[in-house]
Amino acid sequence: MKKILLLNGPNLNLLGEREPQIYGSTTLKDVEANLLKICATNSIEFVGFQSNHEGELIDKIQELRADLTGLIINPAGLSHTSVALRDCLATVACPKVEVHITNIHAREPFRHHSYVSGVVDCVICGAGVMGYELGLKWVLGKI
Amino acid sequence: MKKILLLNGPNLNLLGEREPQIYGSTTLKDVEANLLKICATNSIEFVGFQSNHEGELIDKIQELRADLTGLIINPAGLSHTSVALRDCLATVACPKVEVHITNIHAREPFRHHSYVSGVVDCVICGAGVMGYELGLKWVLGKI
Amino acid sequence: MKKILLLNGPNLNLLGEREPQIYGSTTLKDVEANLLKICATNSIEFVGFQSNHEGELIDKIQELRADLTGLIINPAGLSHTSVALRDCLATVACPKVEVHITNIHAREPFRHHSYVSGVVDCVICGAGVMGYELGLKWVLGKI
Amino acid sequence: MKKILLLNGPNLNLLGEREPQIYGSTTLKDVEANLLKICATNSIEFVGFQSNHEGELIDKIQELRADLTGLIINPAGLSHTSVALRDCLATVACPKVEVHITNIHAREPFRHHSYVSGVVDCVICGAGVMGYELGLKWVLGKI
Amino acid sequence: MKKILLLNGPNLNLLGEREPQIYGSTTLKDVEANLLKICATNSIEFVGFQSNHEGELIDKIQELRADLTGLIINPAGLSHTSVALRDCLATVACPKVEVHITNIHAREPFRHHSYVSGVVDCVICGAGVMGYELGLKWVLGKI
Amino acid sequence: MKKILLLNGPNLNLLGEREPQIYGSTTLKDVEANLLKICATNSIEFVGFQSNHEGELIDKIQELRADLTGLIINPAGLSHTSVALRDCLATVACPKVEVHITNIHAREPFRHHSYVSGVVDCVICGAGVMGYELGLKWVLGKI
Amino acid sequence: MKKILLLNGPNLNLLGEREPQIYGSTTLKDVEANLLKICATNSIEFVGFQSNHEGELIDKIQELRADLTGLIINPAGLSHTSVALRDCLATVACPKVEVHITNIHAREPFRHHSYVSGVVDCVICGAGVMGYELGLKWVLGKI
Amino acid sequence: MKKILLLNGPNLNLLGEREPQIYGSTTLKDVEANLLKICATNSIEFVGFQSNHEGELIDKIQELRADLTGLIINPAGLSHTSVALRDCLATVACPKVEVHITNIHAREPFRHHSYVSGVVDCVICGAGVMGYELGLKWVLGKI
Amino acid sequence: MKKILLLNGPNLNLLGEREPQIYGSTTLKDVEANLLKICATNSIEFVGFQSNHEGELIDKIQELRADLTGLIINPAGLSHTSVALRDCLATVACPKVEVHITNIHAREPFRHHSYVSGVVDCVICGAGVMGYELGLKWVLGKI
Amino acid sequence: MKKILLLNGPNLNLLGEREPQIYGSTTLKDVEANLLKICATNSIEFVGFQSNHEGELIDKIQELRADLTGLIINPAGLSHTSVALRDCLATVACPKVEVHITNIHAREPFRHHSYVSGVVDCVICGAGVMGYELGLKWVLGKI
Amino acid sequence: MKKILLLNGPNLNLLGEREPQIYGSTTLKDVEANLLKICATNSIEFVGFQSNHEGELIDKIQELRADLTGLIINPAGLSHTSVALRDCLATVACPKVEVHITNIHAREPFRHHSYVSGVVDCVICGAGVMGYELGLKWVLGKI
Amino acid sequence: MKKILLLNGPNLNLLGEREPQIYGSTTLKDVEANLLKICATNSIEFVGFQSNHEGELIDKIQELRADLTGLIINPAGLSHTSVALRDCLATVACPKVEVHITNIHAREPFRHHSYVSGVVDCVICGAGVMGYELGLKWVLGKI
Repeated sequence: MKKILLLNGPNLNLLGEREPQIYGSTTLKDVEANLLKICATNSIEFVGFQSNHEGELIDKIQELRADLTGLIINPAGLSHTSVALRDCLATVACPKVEVHITNIHAREPFRHHSYVSGVVDCVICGAGVMGYELGLKWVLGKI
Repeated sequence: MKKILLLNGPNLNLLGEREPQIYGSTTLKDVEANLLKICATNSIEFVGFQSNHEGELIDKIQELRADLTGLIINPAGLSHTSVALRDCLATVACPKVEVHITNIHAREPFRHHSYVSGVVDCVICGAGVMGYELGLKWVLGKI
Repeated sequence: MKKILLLNGPNLNLLGEREPQIYGSTTLKDVEANLLKICATNSIEFVGFQSNHEGELIDKIQELRADLTGLIINPAGLSHTSVALRDCLATVACPKVEVHITNIHAREPFRHHSYVSGVVDCVICGAGVMGYELGLKWVLGKI
Repeated sequence: MKKILLLNGPNLNLLGEREPQIYGSTTLKDVEANLLKICATNSIEFVGFQSNHEGELIDKIQELRADLTGLIINPAGLSHTSVALRDCLATVACPKVEVHITNIHAREPFRHHSYVSGVVDCVICGAGVMGYELGLKWVLGKI
Repeated sequence: MKKILLLNGPNLNLLGEREPQIYGSTTLKDVEANLLKICATNSIEFVGFQSNHEGELIDKIQELRADLTGLIINPAGLSHTSVALRDCLATVACPKVEVHITNIHAREPFRHHSYVSGVVDCVICGAGVMGYELGLKWVLGKI
Repeated sequence: MKKILLLNGPNLNLLGEREPQIYGSTTLKDVEANLLKICATNSIEFVGFQSNHEGELIDKIQELRADLTGLIINPAGLSHTSVALRDCLATVACPKVEVHITNIHAREPFRHHSYVSGVVDCVICGAGVMGYELGLKWVLGKI
Repeated sequence: MKKILLLNGPNLNLLGEREPQIYGSTTLKDVEANLLKICATNSIEFVGFQSNHEGELIDKIQELRADLTGLIINPAGLSHTSVALRDCLATVACPKVEVHITNIHAREPFRHHSYVSGVVDCVICGAGVMGYELGLKWVLGKI
Repeated sequence: MKKILLLNGPNLNLLGEREPQIYGSTTLKDVEANLLKICATNSIEFVGFQSNHEGELIDKIQELRADLTGLIINPAGLSHTSVALRDCLATVACPKVEVHITNIHAREPFRHHSYVSGVVDCVICGAGVMGYELGLKWVLGKI
Repeated sequence: MKKILLLNGPNLNLLGEREPQIYGSTTLKDVEANLLKICATNSIEFVGFQSNHEGELIDKIQELRADLTGLIINPAGLSHTSVALRDCLATVACPKVEVHITNIHAREPFRHHSYVSGVVDCVICGAGVMGYELGLKWVLGKI
Repeated sequence: MKKILLLNGPNLNLLGEREPQIYGSTTLKDVEANLLKICATNSIEFVGFQSNHEGELIDKIQELRADLTGLIINPAGLSHTSVALRDCLATVACPKVEVHITNIHAREPFRHHSYVSGVVDCVICGAGVMGYELGLKWVLGKI
Repeated sequence: MKKILLLNGPNLNLLGEREPQIYGSTTLKDVEANLLKICATNSIEFVGFQSNHEGELIDKIQELRADLTGLIINPAGLSHTSVALRDCLATVACPKVEVHITNIHAREPFRHHSYVSGVVDCVICGAGVMGYELGLKWVLGKI
Repeated sequence: MKKILLLNGPNLNLLGEREPQIYGSTTLKDVEANLLKICATNSIEFVGFQSNHEGELIDKIQELRADLTGLIINPAGLSHTSVALRDCLATVACPKVEVHITNIHAREPFRHHSYVSGVVDCVICGAGVMGYELGLKWVLGKI
């Protein structure tokens, strides 16, 4: 059975709770439920995972990497600092999409560069939480 | 009636014809036909425009900017060099999405920065021609 | 008869219409009428020209360059990106002044450098639309 | 009841043990005991937490962030490399102070920049272990 | 009564005397007399002050800053090096214009950046000594 | 029949007329006549095209690119600023040579880098108008 | 008798008067009175000195440097530009602390580097006027 | 009894499994078995440890640092980003060698700098898995 | 009698032997024979010299510099590193052309800058071994 | 009568007193006495001046500049930060030599660049206090 | 018969003689004798060569390059400055290892980059003279 | 007997012959004769050596380094590019002075940095050929 992994990095567990006037009231649980539903409709297993630990994100990717047909990742703050995460993603062969809720190119300069972007296929940023769904649609279109 | 503008910058008229093994055989005409169909389904007027001239792209945006409910732009090579295009886009109030067919972050360093990204809401790159459709979906989700 | 050329670059045709709370309600037409009147008083022919096309600005400068006794230019976004415009201006022998409505040194870093500044005599920025009149006064003082 | 959190990053558990001729013989336990005592005197709950794991520091901040009236952090080596920690601290509303035992501006260039400094209120460095107490005094002065 | 302050920085007391073939024979005394006359015509008090000392320029601005309706400054060499002067000017609320006799953008690279430009409203350079008069005209137009 | 395209960018229409003591009295018409004659001798069709518009240069390359056996381009000021022109040239398969009349490496630093150089085969600069003929000789040697 | 010197650089004489909603209504006189009182309690002579002149600050340090048991300095704008002040402070042997009222790391990039920081022992920034008192406490703790 | 620690950072647990045509079929288990055997021959205790977590690597170094007679580390992606790991290694007094399987100087620019290199004694890169054995030989030669 | 010097720098003695599928089978001997023949036809003495030693190239230029009517140099790797060679060439008054067999602008960044380019008249790169002949043609055209 | 001016910048009044094991016990008074004697022998008037104030140094140069036959300056910390001093020195026509007691090129990077060096004729550094005498000898050799 | 070349660059002939407390008393003769013995044991011819001349090192590599089964090089100061040496080494097909006696990454910044590292297979630094033996062991392991 | 070595790098053998209007008519032979005479007066052996070869300069320094009581070097173009020369000079214990005939700080930016300056004691530039004599005087003053 096909399997799609959604990874969320540091602080994204606060989604919906933190600054709702900016990020909206959608929680990470809502996002995962939405993607799960779309995957189910397409007879695809969905795995959602969030961690504030770089190491746990890497562990999870390594655990599933041989079985994945698609990977969606929002590396959050690790985007800009983690070569280890980049190296791990480079070992994954399936279609990969990087999602950022905000438009990182309109924020501080240190957010303009993502180590992860160089090893994924597709990057979506600034689309809000809808970006996760667009990312999934792209994955579905590839498989 | 609502109106959505799709702008394509220099050399994108060659889509489908140039290096089809990389870019596929989808032409810009196909892309525009697809978006037109989706817009029609949503009772939205669709305008497609391509030019190799920075000035014509700006003229077109100025001509329609007061009437737009959404704007999708692939500025191609102008992304990295045109402040004039950026300034023009900054005067447009509707939801704006920038699309790049390839993942510009995995190409030459001079393609990593886009002047346009700072004034649009959403950026999608590396999704192939499907990126245009994802961009339109995002616009539809906003309006 | 003496002749003075006023050139305005991309998006300046929107003057007065775009963000009037910031830029005021003076239009480019108003600016040109004002300068025309001052020139007339001094028995000088006035030519006003605006374009969103780098090439048309260059064409116009080439067309008139042998006949000019003064040149006032607001290159707008092209200031920061056009070597071609710089090279064209370098072939003009009369007094030349560059005008920016806003204080570009108090805006984004990429606006702090202008290719044009290196080949004009005088630069005025941040004086609002009054900058055009000050530029003309400087030209009149030189001739 | 008011609550103050003291966070110490990687390798600070070795305080007092490592190079005592430089860092003195005060241990982290001593530091925490001292701050606890001062807090007790002011009827404030004190929580001390040290970890070598970026993720655990973030987890701890998230766990307590809604209840804090003050936060003191020595991010150690993570200061210079962790955007994730910065993003987490940015979600905390109470007075925040960053402490460095040594004067990081008199050390290697890569220590001169701290991602954390941009989202805290106050930064104290080079005051030795007394810096923690000064940081607490500042927090007490704010609340 | 309205008051306008003209400040000139280091070495500008040599105006007219130093390299007259370049700077012309107009002296600073001439410049001040001219501006005084224009101010008098407009029933405005004029104060001229020159110093080679950064501190004296700051003292003078502080002394008069509450009473000013306009400020014209040529910071000369201090433009490129004095944050203290910038900070002082930032405390002045009236219209402020920075004047440079030569076109600093056509000179050595270290002259292209002015700390002062970021806190004034208007910058005029390359207009020769006429720049002072243009600056005053701009101030008069604002008040 | 074989076809060779000579492209000249902004301001090169002024050749021979502008600063003849530096550039000589050879006009662009002379250059094109010379290359036409050489091509004719070799039974090759010659097309000469000059424009001050980036877009028109791109249009022309696209129009002829499938039929070319050789391309000679002097992008002038666009060399240093146009990614769009670079991208267009990258779609042309025949031998390509970039010509600069002056030695751009002995001029201002911003002229030392050409976006075009990365996608042509051969670069000739500083040879004066003879550079065009050398470029043509190289093309003839390749075909 | 022990002696502590408090130095304040350019524009700090305006403390309390300038932007009170940001800086509060505490004046420099208040700050000095507060430190004087604390010093008196500890039987230490206190000297307060403010100047807008780099040279006067250096003169003062030289005058007292042999007699000091502690030095507190807020170099203000000179922090970022004065090697002379740095060199002077390097000749002082007693404990030295640099104080900034605001968090300079959260302001413009040119404020992130202080020449003075490299030659003092301790740096406190962003603590408001309380920073002076914390600085004094640190000095008292050292002597 | 003497003790040598071999540390491997993120993703090195995949050694032998990932891209065997490049990295060969030797696994990390094989590498550790080989070093264990050499250590046993020399009556030295060998400890092998791999983790994808920066924090766990630091914890392990702290746990053993007082007892080590030699340390071999391949920090993988953390080499380029971890000041915390650097600081931890700086507290270890025994001979230390950094090993990279590939030649990091022939890869992407961001891999050319390693924070760890500044605090170890010896660096070996590009020797493949044999690099671990060479590193051990160097350690044995030092003790 | 007129004299032309052809200088070839380090490793160019391997021409024709090294990677013939890239560089072709033309040897340096062939190149020199070809240029000798052309020179002979024009009654010009030809001198060919190759060395792997920077010093020998400088010695040779100094030996002949007073007698030269033309100089062609391929400095190879020394282009990017030798100020001494640049200084020597600057003392030569005759027409000078720099030749690179490959297009150095399409290779590693450190090859994009040549110290030599600043002191020669003409630069030809990417024309293969034909570049030497084009260089000679340019020299013949100048004399 | 010929006149030579020796200028010493900030902190050089401490010469001989500060760190005598490094700088020796020669005082500035000794240096000036020595140069005075040499000048007297050559029937040249000698003026020595030291100040910690940038403005006073500029005032002194302006006061004497018309009468000088030679100028020796040790700008100390101002070397690296004062454009105003540079501009002042540029107005002096006589032979000018810059002296640094220590070898500034072997110290911190910010001391490697001197604004003054670009407008003097000769620079001597690292010669200790003997540098002043060497500077004077050079001046005497020029006049 | 197999052949291994050991190359040593400038100043390495002083090994053992220069600063023996740092570099030890092992001479280059000792190093070569040791490697010769190991090679003899493996029936491999050993060639040792040292020169202070870049050109002689290149000559030697060219002379032997077709016959080598292994190459060990310590380019010393040339590592950081010689593109010519890099280009020469790039023509050698056998396993190549670069050795530095000291840890160049813990020294001045200009020693952190080696042009040679990009074209060799393996780099060993900081292992002292033992680095040569480790390099040889690696070569032996490859052949 | 005491011995002083004067080294001159590439192209300095042309002194007096090349551009005499700039460099004067003094030849290197004259310079050496002058220094020889001064040394003889002081009963010191003088050795003069010039080479265009980096390697020969290093060989000469190594040959004499144990016997020197003073070293004067004008490394010419090698100043800016030779780490090997720097490393060699670092092994010489006697007083060392670097001389440049012109003021390298007033020339092209790449001449502003000298690798040699970091390892000599004293640097003299811009004093013309008199710089050699001043350098010798400094050496004599040290011994």
